[in-house]
Amino acid sequence: MTYRERLAAAVAARGNLCVGIDPMPSVLDAWGVAHDVRGLETVARGIVEELGEHAAAFKPQSAFFEPFGAAGIAVLERVLADIGQAGALSILDVKRGDIGSSMAGYAQAYLADDAPLASDAITVSPYLGVGSLLPAFELARATSRGIYVLARTSNPDGGHLQTATTPSGASVAQHVLDELTALNVEHDGLLGVVLGATHKDLGCDPSGFNGSILAPGVGAQGATIASLASVFQRALPLVLPTASRQIIGGGRQRLRARLQELLSG
Amino acid sequence: MTYRERLAAAVAARGNLCVGIDPMPSVLDAWGVAHDVRGLETVARGIVEELGEHAAAFKPQSAFFEPFGAAGIAVLERVLADIGQAGALSILDVKRGDIGSSMAGYAQAYLADDAPLASDAITVSPYLGVGSLLPAFELARATSRGIYVLARTSNPDGGHLQTATTPSGASVAQHVLDELTALNVEHDGLLGVVLGATHKDLGCDPSGFNGSILAPGVGAQGATIASLASVFQRALPLVLPTASRQIIGGGRQRLRARLQELLSG
Repeated sequence: MTYRERLAAAVAARGNLCVGIDPMPSVLDAWGVAHDVRGLETVARGIVEELGEHAAAFKPQSAFFEPFGAAGIAVLERVLADIGQAGALSILDVKRGDIGSSMAGYAQAYLADDAPLASDAITVSPYLGVGSLLPAFELARATSRGIYVLARTSNPDGGHLQTATTPSGASVAQHVLDELTALNVEHDGLLGVVLGATHKDLGCDPSGFNGSILAPGVGAQGATIASLASVFQRALPLVLPTASRQIIGGGRQRLRARLQELLSG
Repeated sequence: MTYRERLAAAVAARGNLCVGIDPMPSVLDAWGVAHDVRGLETVARGIVEELGEHAAAFKPQSAFFEPFGAAGIAVLERVLADIGQAGALSILDVKRGDIGSSMAGYAQAYLADDAPLASDAITVSPYLGVGSLLPAFELARATSRGIYVLARTSNPDGGHLQTATTPSGASVAQHVLDELTALNVEHDGLLGVVLGATHKDLGCDPSGFNGSILAPGVGAQGATIASLASVFQRALPLVLPTASRQIIGGGRQRLRARLQELLSG
């Protein structure tokens, strides 16, 4: 099964919310654990223990594992294994982007079948050009994995660059969308985009897009499940909204209640 | 001492070449080692053993360590320690870029004094906006470390995005340069840029820049030490050229000879 087919099956069974695994310092505090690698593991794996069979996908944020060096990455390996064992999809948020052999290295790290950090999908960053990401696209196609390319991110700081006008006349975000739309025809639709759910004006039009849309910003950043329809309009069926702090930020005991609250309101 | 002061001292003592530690599969082959974590360690640490006291700076590429998961990151920790013990500066090429607490996580991972992967400087990517990188700038200032922000990368694929016109009229690459020039006034000049040495036309003007310029592309990608003057002109004194495969791609026995060849021609 392709990534899109696996995602569709998971969403059909469990709904379309992606739970962000963001074990940041304030979340460790809320869970009553120390700011060390044991606290990191308690929170990150605890989220999957409680919610693993209640969400279609989980999005671990690599930035909260890397501060602990190799020990933190070992926890991330276990979290990814836990997600797979719970029957959910893992979307590892690493936002990698590089060129040539370096990009091929990142592809191997997260998209090869035998990689310790193999994930169902990863996020990547197109600052070095959409074409520079081809080694990841090719390996994802070969191993039936998925890719989410940053287009329009949820933060206001990103607008100046992402709405810049490329030589062909389109905005940077639109250019990314258009390139991926064309590439998806021969990539089984595995190429998705990241479009923040927080914008009144996305600065690009996803209505003709043909891949999955990962939409961060629900919850703590201000967007709601109900507000997605007005942001994404015709593309709403493609959207995989992701929320983190609003679900995980109240400690382990409140995880399931908070997930239900978010889904119902 | 600030990062700029430490860099200036190292360059005065050892010359201005930065050696890229890129243990990619073809380099492992040239060294006659297996494509496993032991082969990775043999090559990456062997480069520092041979050249550690002959270069001002080393630039390990994280993309070649991450495919081995936690075990690869443990090697990277040791390589960074080796570089420091050899009296050289470490510029870890990670090209991270994210927002808010996630960007703060990446800053902690590479710029905090007690981090297992603490480096003298790191590369970061501005797709989410120069402003999104502030947590890294702030921590680097507090710990006397350095940052290199991607502006114009060495690959042709990057041009379409990096030469796009921002709402203020400047190209994306020029906008990055201008933002950093302004921020450097209160950041001790710790903010550098990445400008590929491979371009006839950079698409931006670094002549007024006030930080270090990391210039990849020397050697295998086609630029030479002699060609730097015509690319960078007035900004040449700021340039830290970086080369990798041309130095490390012939096996351990040829490292010193290749370094000398590159510097002399």
